[in-house]
Amino acid sequence: MTRLFNDPATFTEDMLGGFLDIHASYVVGVPGGVVRATETPPGKVAVVVGGGSGHYPAFCGVVGAGFADGAVVGNIFTSPSAQEAVSVARAAHGDAGVLLLTGNYAGDVMNFGLAVEQLRADGIDARFLTVTDDIASAGPEDLVRRRGIAGDFTVFRCAGACSEEGADLDEVERVAVKANAATRTLGVAFDGCTLPGADRPLFTVPAGTMGLGLGIHGEPGIASHEMPTAAELARLLVSGVVAEKPAGASGRVAVILNGLGRTKYEELFVVWNSVAALLAESGYTVVHPEVGELVTSLDMAGCSLTVMWLDEELERLWTSPADTPAYRKGGVSAQAGVGRSQFTQAAVHVAVADADPASQAGGRVVAESFSAIAAQMVESEDDLGKIDAVAGDGDHGRGMVKGSTAAAEAARAVAAQAGGIASVLRAAGDAWAAKAGGTSGVLWGAALNAAAGVLGDHGLPGDTAVAAALRAGYDALAALGKAARGDKTMLDAFGPFVDAFAESVNAGADWRSAWSQSAEVAHKAAASTAELRPMVGRARPLAERSIGTPDAGAVSLALCITTVTQLIEEKR
Amino acid sequence: MTRLFNDPATFTEDMLGGFLDIHASYVVGVPGGVVRATETPPGKVAVVVGGGSGHYPAFCGVVGAGFADGAVVGNIFTSPSAQEAVSVARAAHGDAGVLLLTGNYAGDVMNFGLAVEQLRADGIDARFLTVTDDIASAGPEDLVRRRGIAGDFTVFRCAGACSEEGADLDEVERVAVKANAATRTLGVAFDGCTLPGADRPLFTVPAGTMGLGLGIHGEPGIASHEMPTAAELARLLVSGVVAEKPAGASGRVAVILNGLGRTKYEELFVVWNSVAALLAESGYTVVHPEVGELVTSLDMAGCSLTVMWLDEELERLWTSPADTPAYRKGGVSAQAGVGRSQFTQAAVHVAVADADPASQAGGRVVAESFSAIAAQMVESEDDLGKIDAVAGDGDHGRGMVKGSTAAAEAARAVAAQAGGIASVLRAAGDAWAAKAGGTSGVLWGAALNAAAGVLGDHGLPGDTAVAAALRAGYDALAALGKAARGDKTMLDAFGPFVDAFAESVNAGADWRSAWSQSAEVAHKAAASTAELRPMVGRARPLAERSIGTPDAGAVSLALCITTVTQLIEEKR
Repeated sequence: MTRLFNDPATFTEDMLGGFLDIHASYVVGVPGGVVRATETPPGKVAVVVGGGSGHYPAFCGVVGAGFADGAVVGNIFTSPSAQEAVSVARAAHGDAGVLLLTGNYAGDVMNFGLAVEQLRADGIDARFLTVTDDIASAGPEDLVRRRGIAGDFTVFRCAGACSEEGADLDEVERVAVKANAATRTLGVAFDGCTLPGADRPLFTVPAGTMGLGLGIHGEPGIASHEMPTAAELARLLVSGVVAEKPAGASGRVAVILNGLGRTKYEELFVVWNSVAALLAESGYTVVHPEVGELVTSLDMAGCSLTVMWLDEELERLWTSPADTPAYRKGGVSAQAGVGRSQFTQAAVHVAVADADPASQAGGRVVAESFSAIAAQMVESEDDLGKIDAVAGDGDHGRGMVKGSTAAAEAARAVAAQAGGIASVLRAAGDAWAAKAGGTSGVLWGAALNAAAGVLGDHGLPGDTAVAAALRAGYDALAALGKAARGDKTMLDAFGPFVDAFAESVNAGADWRSAWSQSAEVAHKAAASTAELRPMVGRARPLAERSIGTPDAGAVSLALCITTVTQLIEEKR
Repeated sequence: MTRLFNDPATFTEDMLGGFLDIHASYVVGVPGGVVRATETPPGKVAVVVGGGSGHYPAFCGVVGAGFADGAVVGNIFTSPSAQEAVSVARAAHGDAGVLLLTGNYAGDVMNFGLAVEQLRADGIDARFLTVTDDIASAGPEDLVRRRGIAGDFTVFRCAGACSEEGADLDEVERVAVKANAATRTLGVAFDGCTLPGADRPLFTVPAGTMGLGLGIHGEPGIASHEMPTAAELARLLVSGVVAEKPAGASGRVAVILNGLGRTKYEELFVVWNSVAALLAESGYTVVHPEVGELVTSLDMAGCSLTVMWLDEELERLWTSPADTPAYRKGGVSAQAGVGRSQFTQAAVHVAVADADPASQAGGRVVAESFSAIAAQMVESEDDLGKIDAVAGDGDHGRGMVKGSTAAAEAARAVAAQAGGIASVLRAAGDAWAAKAGGTSGVLWGAALNAAAGVLGDHGLPGDTAVAAALRAGYDALAALGKAARGDKTMLDAFGPFVDAFAESVNAGADWRSAWSQSAEVAHKAAASTAELRPMVGRARPLAERSIGTPDAGAVSLALCITTVTQLIEEKR
């Protein structure tokens, strides 16, 4: 929802005030909207775009060189008045006429239509064109009734670039008409938006569904779908838009994947991955595509795909330089220098030391342990994430799955190459650190490598060697993590386990019995981290949230120990 | 929430795939992240930034000239591994060393710390620095424990710009340390974000409240506030950050007002309006401020204010050219031309024709009517909005309030200047059209002007003249709106009213009686628009939504008619 405002009634004015301040080098305010900070030079047609606000950067954000000369800015989702359109057009006008451009909405059509009459009465040659790119808003037999959505961007841009080249009003109007005829958009929405000061959304989309063709102000769409995957959505959008290819159009296209506000760049990139592949499969060459927020609707969730089929002229205009507050094109410092050759992922090469048969057998058992641990982590991922979300960022479960799965794979691979215990442990540790990332990944990697150093690749280790290996792992953890027991980390479970293990071995137990006996200690210790102070070095208020919740790292470590215990019991 | 993904486990890889495709002219992928598409030239220090993903454009989006040479990209909200950091650093390294930069988080500190050791072991001079700008994460006595948030942007940028100038590794490191020491950020959050594939948010903020200092991964903040106005928030952020002004710092500052993802540009501009004023009041000169999404957290709602106190060197670096996928600075086409003189809102000049005393008296009554209508519209704003939201965009109530309030003001002003009936009506109509915007504003303006043309400024009109004026208003509406009765517009209420009025007058009634008798007709007609087909030219599915709901324009027109009826009854 829209949360930040002073008086909802002055939201647009307040917004324009901030916009004009921050972009004072590009734009100045005039009654009804904004114009470029520089006078329109003699002979240049003024391209004035407009519509309701709430769609930033559309359209005050694209006033500048190579794009619009002015933007008429209405209230949120409301057409500006004819008087406002006249005011901005007069301010933007030089001596070569004005082209007014909006999306095709009833209010814009009336107000800008009246504005054209008034401008002509004043002796200014004015034309008006509406963009009709939304293929969901009316059928192909009814093009003039289609609404304008993100295709506004391609049409306004080509008209602005054409005017910047010095074309006269007839030419600029011809190019705008051509760009509109070549542009098609299909959009989807996952959730509505809330007007400033409103206590409920303007419209909603049922959870888990997607409205196909839902308008950017909540105008009804043509169908409701179950929420698709990113790849399925890409297929739906590409096939929908491409089916409307204008007769005789070329295979070169400008493409926009536009986010409506709450659908973020990361998600758009995931969808683009599939869109790019599908367009390539269909034989299209994509020219200077744009992925991002170009025509938004406050915090509406959703996106749209726009394709403009290019001829030579439109391609030249689409790729020409532009310099506006929110959209820039053309070299600032034209990345000079030598292009890189493509990097490729080098195959991971694991050195496997010569191991004797006993250690090879041990290595296979260690590899088995990692497989069991990985399976356990997959099962526990959600629980670990929830525990971690109390005081951390909730990614512990995912990190443990990624790390242990990679460790199990690497361990199996090295065991299959006749690696000994130490080689298997090292491979597992390195893979864990490399794939899990985060804090726990690097700590597990360090602990496993330290243990490997004690155990070696020759012979089966004795009970005291296992105790020493565990101790070495613990010491590596403590050193790298710069933490001590009581700081509410995995050390709080691992320390008591290592101590209990050493005590059992010193009392004469073999390592398997010592392990089983100590596992319970690790569990209790992990649970008791719920009572501990939080780790030193975190902000004070963390204490209030994390007391009462065990540490996720301690819990996952205890789970790993139990998993190995079960394997030991099975093998007895 | 994050809705678009394929397999949540491969979200980061899929995202990077799309990012690399769309920005292939800037970047290429390497194991662990991205580097510039051009080789690092001899003698240039490589600045490699990094951290978990989910913060776009931070930080793969700022790899390019004048900024980073490479970005290490971890999984969502998860530190990359040491191996990944080494991989990207090696790829970015030329021959002059590498500076690694991250925010101050435990996982990044460990993994990048290990990476530095490995790079040095390979003979690459590597340094590592973490950004600590978040003043809410630890006290001023404990700077090294502060987290890095949007201040990453200023620090990374200055280091990158310094390296672009050709400085050696010692110099680039010195600048990064200085920029970090000069940078402070305070953030707020209004709602959490959802990891790809998760069925609930990572964390939440209670509705109607704001978490002060809440971290960008949901780390605990320092206080919970009631949701403030935009101006109150600006004051809180500015006073919090400015209180931490470093000793001896200048009055020139770089400033970032950063949106976290769901808080949109329009809202940020509203807040900026107050931030700019407060900083100016405090005697600060703001240098090249940035308002927008620079360091996000998926779709988290919230924003932060970053201030970097500038000396001559930092100002030069902050304002130097940059060219990256998501951040560009420096002239593309350096807006040439003559700067505009500032436009100011011209005082509205209304020509008041000479009116006779009778028409002057009539004008005062008309002005009274508009005041009554405006009061009624304020009362009905919410109801009209709700009706309009069914088939439209819910702005009808707001538009009617804006229009009628402006009309009432203009009418009072002209009546006070001894304007006659026609002058008052014209002023009201022009103000309504100018201030309401949208469809209904321009239609009301046209209707009132047409009626004024019939009534004139001399004498009180007779009953048939009033009927003719209403008819003229109706005709103007129909012509401008290009609609007919039955299209579910205000014509459906106005038409029957005008007909009934004419019939009453023809049957001998005076205009006051005719008005009162016909008001009921308008109401019934407005209500019956619930049964009508929707307006021609709208998409088919609208029919399904709008049948059963009356047309908001017809309802508001009927309300206006009733308001005037009450005034007539009172004056009898």
